[in-house]
Order: sequence, then structure tokens, then C-alpha cells
Amino acid sequence: MTAEDAVSYVSGRTRMFGIIGDPIEQVRSPEMVTAEMKQRGQDALLVPLHVLPADFDDVLPRLMKLANLGGLVFTIPYKVRAATLAASYGAALGPQARIVGAINALGRGADGKWRADIFDGLGCVEAFRRKGHAFKGKRVMLLGAGGAGAAIGVAIAYEGPAAIRLFDVDAGRAAALVAKIRSVDAGIAAEAGAPTVDGVDYLINATPVGMLTDVRLPLPVESLPARLVVLDAIVKPERTPLLALAERCGCPTIGGREMMRGQIATMVDFFGYKRAGA
Amino acid sequence: MTAEDAVSYVSGRTRMFGIIGDPIEQVRSPEMVTAEMKQRGQDALLVPLHVLPADFDDVLPRLMKLANLGGLVFTIPYKVRAATLAASYGAALGPQARIVGAINALGRGADGKWRADIFDGLGCVEAFRRKGHAFKGKRVMLLGAGGAGAAIGVAIAYEGPAAIRLFDVDAGRAAALVAKIRSVDAGIAAEAGAPTVDGVDYLINATPVGMLTDVRLPLPVESLPARLVVLDAIVKPERTPLLALAERCGCPTIGGREMMRGQIATMVDFFGYKRAGA
Repeated sequence: MTAEDAVSYVSGRTRMFGIIGDPIEQVRSPEMVTAEMKQRGQDALLVPLHVLPADFDDVLPRLMKLANLGGLVFTIPYKVRAATLAASYGAALGPQARIVGAINALGRGADGKWRADIFDGLGCVEAFRRKGHAFKGKRVMLLGAGGAGAAIGVAIAYEGPAAIRLFDVDAGRAAALVAKIRSVDAGIAAEAGAPTVDGVDYLINATPVGMLTDVRLPLPVESLPARLVVLDAIVKPERTPLLALAERCGCPTIGGREMMRGQIATMVDFFGYKRAGA
Repeated sequence: MTAEDAVSYVSGRTRMFGIIGDPIEQVRSPEMVTAEMKQRGQDALLVPLHVLPADFDDVLPRLMKLANLGGLVFTIPYKVRAATLAASYGAALGPQARIVGAINALGRGADGKWRADIFDGLGCVEAFRRKGHAFKGKRVMLLGAGGAGAAIGVAIAYEGPAAIRLFDVDAGRAAALVAKIRSVDAGIAAEAGAPTVDGVDYLINATPVGMLTDVRLPLPVESLPARLVVLDAIVKPERTPLLALAERCGCPTIGGREMMRGQIATMVDFFGYKRAGA
């Protein structure tokens, strides 16, 4: 076997995908999305594409011209800009992307036309589903109404929960997300207010509090009821202060990496690759 | 080990390279160049980029803006167009590229500036060198003065051969290459004329005669002198009618795939990655 035969993961026939961000070194999509596509039996590869802010509007439309490009993923700082730009080049935005005003995936449909949507929130819903937890009729406390929080709030709204309570340090941002949630489903008891776990089924942290070396909790509690299901969207560390507390209190927990896996699975569905056995 | 950990060949830190062509499915650079870069210990990946002719002028300059792109390879039909376009966007063309009027590699130097050159001919020289054959003082018969033939003729001219005799069905094309060879080194006895092996040390086929199911020889001979070294630039089949005859006559032979390996090694040198042990 020669050295080139040993490289089995790329050839002229490999369908290409990319992730666009600035910076790009820290992204995990290249290995995670590629692994998910391979697991589904696809000859496809997602690679990092480092686009600088000054070049984004110029480069994105030209990448969309690559004939063997199946799709693009967007990360910081491009989710909002990509939504506007992709739409102006004819991409159809999904309902969640339109409400959130941001996209993180742009895919070429079987008809060759571009479609875009946001999967941060769908990944959260998928991660709960994988652990056997549905949102239908549940009462949710969501911490954080920024980019990730908004996507999560809107995605949950589509699942028919009984109530969503929101907290954000920026009251205006929280109120805007309440309005978005109501626009999806007016039957949801959506409100902005202080963080609480009273009468709450699912607690979701979409703030950066607890990230890296931050030892704080994103809400002022000393314990959590054991029936509460707790998701923390933070990826690093894997065991955040909130998740550590939840574990001590006997709560079922879902980590940021599990949410990422949920997001990647739904994103690869969107790219048109069926799940193994599906 | 999770599935994503199993994907070790791409991450956010991987330096990207691409090959641009139309069509793209048949190219071998993704696996061959990637294997060569990995063998040199680099976290780098070359992927296929299918650019349609109508989009080439628009897309290439924008790909050059990708901050984590280390280089591009060009194949059919873009070697000539890429030379003009890359130069107009500030790429410095190497001496062989300027004489041939075509490039097949564009690389970002350590200073961040783009440089371009053509490696088809250098790959031929490298393949001879790997088998212990130098061109210095040798007499060469070159069949074909098209894109590949011109690159080979010019690359050999830099090696100080005694003579280069050229044959092409298009006499004007042969004459033009004779002039290019003389412009490199006026001391070479360069001439256009009918194919012959009389007094020839090295015979090189750069015509498409013998490709795929073509059973013809590229020159009218029934046998070859055993001292003749024979290279056939054709990649498919690996054993062309010319190489089969050469083997029967006891000649040392060099195949198209060996020339490709030589080309890839010199191209990866050009991309700035030192050879293992070098």
C-alpha cells in the first residue's frame, strides 16, 4: 500500500462542506460534522474556512458558486450577517431562521437551490429528546436571550411547552424574545422575569456564566429540586458549576457537548443525509 | 472513543489547500498531495474545488482571501487562465511559469505573499532523478509540445541537456517550444523534427497517444535500444503500449504515476513543507 492509498477520506469525488468563522482554530464542526456524515455512509468532508470580517460579503457568494459544495456552517461572528447575505443571494430561510434573524447552516437542496436555517435551538430540543424528555406541556426556565438563547427559545416554542420564563441581564433583549416566542405560539405562557426553579420542569443555561474558569452559577440558588432536568449550553468546561450542582442534587443533566451532537445530527439531516437506519 | 474523535485528519487548525478544475471527480491530488503533506508531519489537507468556467475569474480571487488557505493547485482547463489571473492579483510567477505561460500551483509564502509556478515539467525531472538519471549533457527526444510537453521541455532545459529534439503533429507548436527552450539556454541543441531514437538517451512521451484503450505507439518503431530511458507521462493505463515495448526491449522505464509523485513532491516543497529528513 502506498502512502496516497492510505488517505481514504478525501478524493476528487468527496462532497465538500465548510465552516466559516473568525477566528477558526477553535471550531469543532470539522471533526464532529465529518464524523456524523461518515457514520451515515457519506463521502463528505467539512473543512475550516477562515474568512475575515472585511471579506465576508465578498467571499460568501463566491463560495456558493463551488459546484461540489454541499453546504456551509456559520459561527461567530457571522450568524446574523450570513442570514441577510444568503437570503439576498436567493437562499430560502427556514421559519426559525426568519424569527431569530440568524442562520448557522446553508445547504444545497436536491433541486440545487440554497436553503438556510439555525440549528442551535434544534440541537437543544434534540439533546432533550435523546434523553427521553419532550417539551410538550412542560414549564421551562431559560437563562439568556442572546444569540444562542434566542435560537433555543424559538426552537422550544415550536415544541408546544406550557410556559417559558426568560431571564436576561438586558431586559429589552428578554422582552424581544418573549415577543418572538409568542409569535410562534400565542398559547405559550411566555414571560420575562427573575430566574427561578419554582414550578419549573426544565432549566436551560444559555448565558456565558460558568464558562472556562468562571465558577459562578447563572442563577442564585443553593440547591435544585431533583425532578428538574438541567441543560447547560456551555461546551468548555464539560462539567460547569451549574451541572455540578445539578448532579449533586440528583437532577438529570445534559451538557453542551450533547447539545452540540444534537445540533450536528439535525444539521446533517438538513444537509440531506439520512440517519443510519432511518 | 467517540465517533468525532476518530476523525483525526481535519480540525479547525488544519491548513487548507484546494485543487480547482472542471470536471473535478477524476483528480488524484486530494489523496496524493494530502498523503505527501501528512508524511511530512503537517496538519494540512487538499480538497477538490469544482469551479465552472463561467465562475473562474470571479471565484479564484475570493478563494485567495481565505486566511487559512495555504495554496491552490490548478488542473484542466485552468492552467493558462490561472497564470494570468493570479498574476493580476499580485502573485509572483516563477521563471518556468512565465516561459510556459501557465501555472499549476499557487502558494502563500512565509511572508503571506502569493507565488505561482508550474510543476508538470519539474515532476518529470524529479522522476528521472529518483531513478538516478540526470539530464546534464544528455540527448532527449520529447514527443508532444502541448501543455504538458511545453512544461517538460522548459524544465529539462534548466537541467543543461546537450540536445532536445521535439516532435508535435502541430509543427508551429513544436517551433514555439524550440524557441522557449533556446530562451532558457541557447547552448542546447534544440530542434523540431520527426521522432527518432537514434543517438537519444532519454525518450519522453507527452502526447495522449497510448492513453486509456489507445493501443498505438507515439512513434513509429518496432524496438528500442536497451540503453534508452523511457518516460511516459500518461497515468492511465499505468503500463502504456510504449512502456510495454520499452520493458520488452530491456529499457529502464518511468511511468506517469511516478512523474505525478515527483510533481507532488516538488509542489509540496513549493508550499513550504520540508521533506522528512531534509
